[in-house]
Amino acid sequence: MSSSGTTHHTTGRDRLWSVDEHLDDILATVRPLEPIELQLLDAQGCVLIEDVTVPVSLPPFDNSSMDGYAVRVADVAGASEEFPAVLTVIGDVAAGQGEQPTVGPGEAARIMTGAPLPPGAEAVVPVEWTDGGLGQGPATGMRAHSAAPEGASGEVRVHRPAEARAHVRARGSDVRAGDRALTAGTVLGAPQIALLAAIGRGTVTVRPRPRVVVMSTGSELVQPGEQLADGQIYDSNSFALTAAAREAGAIAYRVGAVTDDAEILRSTIEDQLIRADLLVTTGGVSVGAYDVVKEALDSIGDPDDEEGLGAGGGVEFRKLAMQPGKPQGFGTIGPDHTPLLALPGNPVSSYVSFEMFVRPAVRALMGLPDVHRTTARARLTADKALTSPAGRRQFLRGRHDADAGTVTPVGGSGSHLIAALAHADALIVVPEDTTSVEPGTDVDVVLLG
Amino acid sequence: MSSSGTTHHTTGRDRLWSVDEHLDDILATVRPLEPIELQLLDAQGCVLIEDVTVPVSLPPFDNSSMDGYAVRVADVAGASEEFPAVLTVIGDVAAGQGEQPTVGPGEAARIMTGAPLPPGAEAVVPVEWTDGGLGQGPATGMRAHSAAPEGASGEVRVHRPAEARAHVRARGSDVRAGDRALTAGTVLGAPQIALLAAIGRGTVTVRPRPRVVVMSTGSELVQPGEQLADGQIYDSNSFALTAAAREAGAIAYRVGAVTDDAEILRSTIEDQLIRADLLVTTGGVSVGAYDVVKEALDSIGDPDDEEGLGAGGGVEFRKLAMQPGKPQGFGTIGPDHTPLLALPGNPVSSYVSFEMFVRPAVRALMGLPDVHRTTARARLTADKALTSPAGRRQFLRGRHDADAGTVTPVGGSGSHLIAALAHADALIVVPEDTTSVEPGTDVDVVLLG
Repeated sequence: MSSSGTTHHTTGRDRLWSVDEHLDDILATVRPLEPIELQLLDAQGCVLIEDVTVPVSLPPFDNSSMDGYAVRVADVAGASEEFPAVLTVIGDVAAGQGEQPTVGPGEAARIMTGAPLPPGAEAVVPVEWTDGGLGQGPATGMRAHSAAPEGASGEVRVHRPAEARAHVRARGSDVRAGDRALTAGTVLGAPQIALLAAIGRGTVTVRPRPRVVVMSTGSELVQPGEQLADGQIYDSNSFALTAAAREAGAIAYRVGAVTDDAEILRSTIEDQLIRADLLVTTGGVSVGAYDVVKEALDSIGDPDDEEGLGAGGGVEFRKLAMQPGKPQGFGTIGPDHTPLLALPGNPVSSYVSFEMFVRPAVRALMGLPDVHRTTARARLTADKALTSPAGRRQFLRGRHDADAGTVTPVGGSGSHLIAALAHADALIVVPEDTTSVEPGTDVDVVLLG
Repeated sequence: MSSSGTTHHTTGRDRLWSVDEHLDDILATVRPLEPIELQLLDAQGCVLIEDVTVPVSLPPFDNSSMDGYAVRVADVAGASEEFPAVLTVIGDVAAGQGEQPTVGPGEAARIMTGAPLPPGAEAVVPVEWTDGGLGQGPATGMRAHSAAPEGASGEVRVHRPAEARAHVRARGSDVRAGDRALTAGTVLGAPQIALLAAIGRGTVTVRPRPRVVVMSTGSELVQPGEQLADGQIYDSNSFALTAAAREAGAIAYRVGAVTDDAEILRSTIEDQLIRADLLVTTGGVSVGAYDVVKEALDSIGDPDDEEGLGAGGGVEFRKLAMQPGKPQGFGTIGPDHTPLLALPGNPVSSYVSFEMFVRPAVRALMGLPDVHRTTARARLTADKALTSPAGRRQFLRGRHDADAGTVTPVGGSGSHLIAALAHADALIVVPEDTTSVEPGTDVDVVLLG
C-alpha cells in the first residue's frame, strides 16, 4: 500500500466541477453489470438483455373460452328454447386432460374453459345456452363433477345455434411461435413476467441488481438505540443511504460507521470489495485534518500500485459548484475497478448527493434506460424570495403539489436540517446563475419517489 | 369438513355485483395488520403507527459547520490578510473526540466540521480565511493530522473577523427535544429513516408488510421451463401475481399450480394459512364442473363448522359486472379469518382482478393511506371506436402518453391476450353505461406502475 496524503496524479481536483460534469464523469465510467441468467421471479425489476422469441404458439391448441358443450354446427342449427337440439353427451373435456373423445353427429362433449376443442367439434355453446343436461330449462352452471359424475353422460338440450369457431380461442391467437415476445432492454414487471412464464421461460438473462455497500465514517457516530456520550451523534447516513439504494433497485449492504482512522477504513473497504458492485462512503471528504476517506483513498490507484486497492483508476476528490454537496469523491478501486462514490457527511448533503449521483450510477449499473428522477416545473410558493449563492446549483427541500403545480420550501438551506428533509417530497433546483428566486416564479423540481 | 357443492349460505351470489360493491366489501373486511416493532431498515416502506417525539435535540451540542479554527470574537476583530490576527493553536477538536481544550484569549483550537465548539470559543473561522498555520498566505485545506501532527500546535494567522456564532450550528437548530419528529401514518422512506436514525431510534413500531400466498389452480398447468404435453399450458398466473404482490409492498410466497382436486386444494390452503395474511388463488371460480376453488371453498365458513378452514366467514363466489374478471370469490377462512381472494384463471382476467381488488387489499393490510393506483383522464387514440358490453365495466390494456395526454389500446379485449398486457402500461376504463367509445373521447385510465 502506498503512503497516504500528498500524491497528486490528476488535475480535476484543482478546479470547480459543475454538477453535470461530475455526473457525466460518473456515467461515463460506470458500465452496466454483466448479464446473468436468473429464475423468473428473481429477475423482477431487472432489464432483459435478450430478445425473447415465442417458442410455442399461445394458446398452444384450439380451446374453449367458456364452460359449455363442444358441438358440431349442423347439429345445433336452428335450435331454440322451444325447439332445442337434443344431443348425446359423450363425456367431459376438462383442462389438462390428456385424451379427448371424438364428437360425432348428434353428439356433444361437455367442455370446460381452457380445455382443448375435441376432434369432430366445431364450436362451443355456453352452458347457459343449454339445459345443462338436467332437462329443466336454461342452466346457470354445471354441478361439480365430483358430486354429480352423471353430468358427463346422458342428454343435453341446446337452446341456441352456434357459428363455426364460436367460443373457441384459436391456437396462436395470442402469440405465434417465432414472434418476438419481448425485446432486449425491457424492464421486467409483473405483466412481462406473466408473458415469459406463459411462453414457458423458467429463466431469463438480465442485468442483475447491483450490490451496493454503504459505509459512513466518523469517530463521533453512534448506532441508533445506543447511548450518546459528549460530542457524539447518531449515525443516520448509513441507514438513509442503504434505504435509498434499495429504493433505487440495488441490493444494499449497510456496513455502518467506521471510525476516523485511514488504515481501518482502507482495510474495511478492501474487505467489502468482494461483495460490492458499487461502494458509497459518507464523510471525510472535505478539507479537514481528520478527513480519512480522502486520506485513505487520495493516493491510491496509481498505475504502478499493484497492491490492495490500487488497481482501480483511483478516487479523485473534487469541489463541486453545488449546495449542499460541495466536496465529492469519485473513482474506481480494486482489481475489478469497482466504482466508489465518496459523499460528504452532513445528512442532507449526503442524501442530496445520493439522489444526484449515486442513484443514477445504480440505475446505470442495472442498464435501465432512464437513470434520472422525474422532474417537473412548478410555481414557487413562499413567503419570501429564495436566496442562493452565485455560481452554485442549489438544491432546497420542498413539497410539491402536482395538482396545483406548486412547490413550497420546507425548512432552510442548512445542510444539517434532516428534519425538514423528512417532510419534503421534492428538491427545488436553483441554477448556478440565479441568486434569488421570487415567489410565483417557475422553478425546476426533482420529484423524490 | 362439510360436503361440497350445494350449500347456499349467503345471498350475494345470486345477483350481479358492481366492481365498486365488490371492492367496498373487500375493503370493509380487510383490517390493517397489527403493528410490530421492527429494526429501522426492516421498516422501510411501512406505515409508522406511533407519533415519534425527538428525545434529544439535534444537533445535540453547538458544533462547527466548517473545518477551521474556533476563536474568541475579540481576538479576530479587524483581522485582514494584511494585518492578520496571530493566535496560538492549543490543539485539535475533531468530531467524536471526548475532551476539548478551553480556548483562552489569544488562542485558537483547530476544529473539524461537526466537532463541538470548545469552551471559551465563540465562533469558527474557516481554514480558507487563515494561513492554516503554514505562514504562507491563505490555505486551501488542512494537512492530514496523521501526516502532519504539528498542525494541531504552533500559530495560525486569521485573515478575516468573525461574528459571534459564525459557522456554529446551534444545539437544537435542527430539531428540539420534545418536538414531534414524525406523526403516525407516515410512510417510511429513506429521508424518514434518516431522521429516525438521527434522533437515535434503532427500532420503530409499524404495520408489517403482509405475507401474501399466491397459488394457481388447474390440472393443465405446467411449470415454465418444463415440457408441455397435449392439452397443457404453462402456469403464468402464480408468477405474475407473486411479482405484482411484491410490487404492491407484500412479502409474497408463490405456491405454484395446484391440480384440479378439491381435497388437495383444501389441504394446500390449510397448510399455507400459517404463513398467510392474505391468500390469492387463480382459476376454478366459474360455472364449470371442475371449478375446484369454488368446490373446495364454497361450503366452508358456516358458523357451526369448527374444523379446518371453516372458522372464517366463508368465501362467497360472485358474478361481477366487469370484463374481464366476471367470476370472483372473496371471504375469510381459517381460525384467523384470513382474507382470501379467488380470481379467475385467464391470465389477463387474473392480472386485472389483482390490480382492481388484491392490490388495494394488500395496501389496506399495510395501513397505507391511499390504496388505489393513480388514475388520469386521457384522450383515446384509436383507429376505430372501442366497443364494450352494456352493464359491464370494461378494462382494456393501453399505452398512456402523459405528455400528449393520450391513451392507445394495445391488443384486443380477449381475456387471454397476455402478450398485449406485457406491452401495456395502463388500463382503459369503459364505464358500465357505455357501449362504444369514439376516438378522441376522454377516458379514465388506471396507470400501472
